Amino acid sequence: MDPEFTLKPHRNARARIALTVGDPAGIGPELVQALLDDDALARAVQLVVVGPEDLKPEGVGSWQGTDSPDSTIHLWCSTPGSGRVTMGRAQADCGRAALAALRRGAGMAQAGEVAALVTAPVCKEALHLAGEEVEGQTELLGRWAGASQCEMVAMAGNLRVMLLSRHMPLAAALKEVRRATIVERLRLFDSTLRAEGIPAPRLAVAGLNPHAGEGGLFGSEEIDEIAPAVAEACALGLSVQGPISPDRVFLEGSRGHWDGVLALYHDQGFIPLKLLSEGSGVTLLAGLPYRRLSPVHGTAFDIAGEGRADPTNLRVAVVMAARGGLGSRPSQEEGPADVQEEVDCESLPST
Amino acid sequence: MDPEFTLKPHRNARARIALTVGDPAGIGPELVQALLDDDALARAVQLVVVGPEDLKPEGVGSWQGTDSPDSTIHLWCSTPGSGRVTMGRAQADCGRAALAALRRGAGMAQAGEVAALVTAPVCKEALHLAGEEVEGQTELLGRWAGASQCEMVAMAGNLRVMLLSRHMPLAAALKEVRRATIVERLRLFDSTLRAEGIPAPRLAVAGLNPHAGEGGLFGSEEIDEIAPAVAEACALGLSVQGPISPDRVFLEGSRGHWDGVLALYHDQGFIPLKLLSEGSGVTLLAGLPYRRLSPVHGTAFDIAGEGRADPTNLRVAVVMAARGGLGSRPSQEEGPADVQEEVDCESLPST
Repeated sequence: MDPEFTLKPHRNARARIALTVGDPAGIGPELVQALLDDDALARAVQLVVVGPEDLKPEGVGSWQGTDSPDSTIHLWCSTPGSGRVTMGRAQADCGRAALAALRRGAGMAQAGEVAALVTAPVCKEALHLAGEEVEGQTELLGRWAGASQCEMVAMAGNLRVMLLSRHMPLAAALKEVRRATIVERLRLFDSTLRAEGIPAPRLAVAGLNPHAGEGGLFGSEEIDEIAPAVAEACALGLSVQGPISPDRVFLEGSRGHWDGVLALYHDQGFIPLKLLSEGSGVTLLAGLPYRRLSPVHGTAFDIAGEGRADPTNLRVAVVMAARGGLGSRPSQEEGPADVQEEVDCESLPST
Repeated sequence: MDPEFTLKPHRNARARIALTVGDPAGIGPELVQALLDDDALARAVQLVVVGPEDLKPEGVGSWQGTDSPDSTIHLWCSTPGSGRVTMGRAQADCGRAALAALRRGAGMAQAGEVAALVTAPVCKEALHLAGEEVEGQTELLGRWAGASQCEMVAMAGNLRVMLLSRHMPLAAALKEVRRATIVERLRLFDSTLRAEGIPAPRLAVAGLNPHAGEGGLFGSEEIDEIAPAVAEACALGLSVQGPISPDRVFLEGSRGHWDGVLALYHDQGFIPLKLLSEGSGVTLLAGLPYRRLSPVHGTAFDIAGEGRADPTNLRVAVVMAARGGLGSRPSQEEGPADVQEEVDCESLPST
């Protein structure tokens, strides 16, 4: 992700963005602190940080609902805390604190009290210790919103990826490669990109096997499931091509050849995403009634609390949240009074 | 792969490299022609091109065995041809021609008539039509050499990857993730890199499942097979770490953190390799009694014969073949009389 997302200063309304602190034992709190200290960000975005009161820095105002003044630079919405925290370790108390903040932030976004929700990373193991046997924040947000389908669009440079399956053994992921699921996911991908301001998204589907099976030589899923799914999606009016060789389609996506690439399992998508984003990137959650963005990196327990964590990706997530849509471009007419961002064209192509 | 591999001019002996033309219906012949026309290359390398007589350009001398003069810039070793060729299509005649050239080139390398073998791409379907039901050239070269193990080391920039399995359905590749196979592959990887001049190779093994299974949450192969294999390899004196999250280990390899990364299936290795090498790269075949290098790209039937194919990767393969070892560095003492290459440090780290 291009680190040079910049925000032009403005005079009037800031985009109000809810930002959860994530797991208190991870790098979330220090990343949030870095964004609160970011003067350029403050000129264009009003953060409403959601997290334990004891993490609130001095001088940050308290969230008083939608009546909170826009003129206050940033606000804090206190949620139940974790008590004593050992940095860099999964703890039930921290899992509970992260859950409370996430729930509150989701509620604010769903109620329209903020323009979008951005979440710092949580620790799945801590969530499990806290009694929530979930894959991660995505699953919780989908459940709370009553969303029938809820999937990530992960982004790095020009590459945008949706996954067919996420956190499950690879052997189980292979069994998810089914025509109906692929079509369903392509429809969600298409409608999400349209809602983000890309009028006719060009989608590609990766193959599952080496060289996309090379005509059936190395596996039959391409012939039995993937190609029929692409044909069905095209018949529904979507612009989809595939299956394309996995070792080619992400390279093509990185060159802007596709508005979105459907990856058939977690690492098929995340190996190229992390390589292109130098270890991180930004995700948009598709299928929610509100916009939610997050960095793809985790809690980084190995460096948590040391002040070494890089806030770039959380910042990019906040800027993309404030921007309002992946396909939107600041217009000349909008003038300096509105929130505007200058983004590198290579980083977010207009379509 | 860095395109700026350059060769210093020299006065005396060139490195003599056998170069097969690959499938006559693919881009091999035009890539070979580009290298024959490359004056800088000719000052340091004597190519012995192996392929059908009717592809031989005017002015190229004929190979007369090891008595062929070094002073002749490049030579041609004629092998049975394909007759009429339709460009861009798998044909049995072309498969037979590619096989004949490969067999002859392998023989020359094994007999020590050349310093190394470089092969232009073949078409597996054409090989199958010609009666050879093989995965590709690698399998044939291993068989002809009577090699007990024969595996590719694929390279792009700092990243060097060996695969646990190659061209097979992904579902079948999962079943190959076994402790004994991993240890065997690590030993071959280690000995190959040592033979290439890297004295104590630092190896990493990728996980199989998302986040390398995250402690058993998403799959058990890491616990049951991979971690025990790493422990066994370390007990044998190798320097190995893993399993490391697949979406992290290739990024680390690209940054030079590892001398080699063992990927557990084809696309796990080739997605990052092709991304880093912008679509191609170079492979070294491990386990042969001679050095063989090749570009990782294929026959590119879609553009074959149009003169648009980029010879960079085949050229890099030839230069690396002439260089004599991945870990070798031209010394000041060698002077201008020997074959020397200046390679970008980012591209081939010394160790």
